[in-house]
Parts: sequence; C-alpha cells; structure tokens
Amino acid sequence: MSEHIDVFLGDWHRMVAEKDTQAIDALLADDVDIGAPPYLEKIEGRALVGHLLGLILHTIEDFTYHRRWRDGGEIALEFTGRVGELSLQGIDLITLNDRGEVQHIDVLMRPINAIEALRDTIRPQMLAYLQGGG
Amino acid sequence: MSEHIDVFLGDWHRMVAEKDTQAIDALLADDVDIGAPPYLEKIEGRALVGHLLGLILHTIEDFTYHRRWRDGGEIALEFTGRVGELSLQGIDLITLNDRGEVQHIDVLMRPINAIEALRDTIRPQMLAYLQGGG
Repeated sequence: MSEHIDVFLGDWHRMVAEKDTQAIDALLADDVDIGAPPYLEKIEGRALVGHLLGLILHTIEDFTYHRRWRDGGEIALEFTGRVGELSLQGIDLITLNDRGEVQHIDVLMRPINAIEALRDTIRPQMLAYLQGGG
Repeated sequence: MSEHIDVFLGDWHRMVAEKDTQAIDALLADDVDIGAPPYLEKIEGRALVGHLLGLILHTIEDFTYHRRWRDGGEIALEFTGRVGELSLQGIDLITLNDRGEVQHIDVLMRPINAIEALRDTIRPQMLAYLQGGG
C-alpha cells in the first residue's frame, strides 16, 4: 500500500500541475465519488468526477500544493489558488482503494466568495456537459 | 515535539468535546491567528481567536472529529456537524509552535449553505463582542 501511495502522490502532483485531466481520469476508481465545495451531496462515477475535477483545475488559477499529510490510504493535500481576483485556500481529502485508485475525494475551501465564484463558473459547464449526454 | 503533539491532541479533543473554551484559550499562542471559513483575512490574537473558536463550537451542533493527520507540528483534523438543519464537513489545519501552543489554525468547510449559516449566526455575536470592548 505504501508504494501505491508514493506512486499516486508523484503522479497526482504531476497531473495536476500539467492539468493532464485524461491521466487523472485513469487514477479514479470506476465508482469514485466526490464531495465538491458547494454541495453536500456526493457526485459519483469516474466520468462525472473526472469531468468536474478537470473543470475545477481549469477554473482555479495559480493552483499550488503546499502541506500534505498521509495516513495509510488517507491523504490530505492543502492547496492555494485564485478564481479571478479571489484568492482561496483549499484541501483535497483523498481515500485510495487497495489498487491505488481514488475512491473518495472531498474538496473543502475558504473563503465563501471564492467558492461561490468557482460554483458560478463551473455550474453552467457541468449542466452543458450533462445535457450533452455526458 | 512529538510528546507535545500527543498531549495537545488529547487535550484538544477533550476540550472540544466538552466545549471547554477557557481551557482552549490556554492552548493558544499570544499571537495565534485563524483563517475562518467565510473570510480570507486572518484574525489575530488569543482573545479574539479564542472567542471566535468558542462561538464556532457553540454554533456547530453534533461536532464530531473523524480522520486526523499529523506531520511534525502540522495537524489536520476532519470534523462533521450541523448548523440547524444543515450538515457540514470541515477540517482544522493547525500549526503548533515549539511550546505546543496553537500558532495558526485554518478552518475549511463545505458546503456553502452551512458556511453561510455559520457566518450569519456568528457575525452579530462577534460584532457585539468587539463593540463591548473585547
């Protein structure tokens, strides 16, 4: 498991830095779920979660990871960035399954105005994606 | 340092469970700062931060800690709770100084509606506290 996590963290940081969303998709479990910043309900499934992660990565500018914690397959990754003029701090809480894939990911952020700006930018794009048949 | 962290975590969990805000104040550095969920700007100083933490603890019901991570003096503590009917997930990112006191604490939460409810409950109480001369 420990090697899985080392490999995962190296891959994940590279993919996020390069916004390589296709490669990120390959790191997600089929039945991955995400707890996005604006909503309590989880969004499930690799296609939807991958698409949402891609939109988040393309919306947050100057995305930079800082502190990171790990405890078995449970990982916490702090990041900063901005949406337009609004700076933000966030954290990814990631659970890996025993194949080293992302099983759960929760994204928490502050402050409110940056979360609202992220939501308002991404919501119409997610709706268009869903209406396009996924 | 490691013993400091063990002692801190034991004390912190007990104090939070018992909402023992006086004891929490004693764990804060004089010049502690907090990044609260609604705002980007930090709030500084033991009296203000202690008061705000007390208001947060008294506003979030069913406050329960879950996963926790540590890396030297850097600690991440996941929690859940609710504000009225609104469920929330949050994380405390805590930096201890070399005396085992809280030097920095950031509180990140999701979803937006719970952060707004928390802000709307606490803001008038903080204003009243500030207008009362602290």
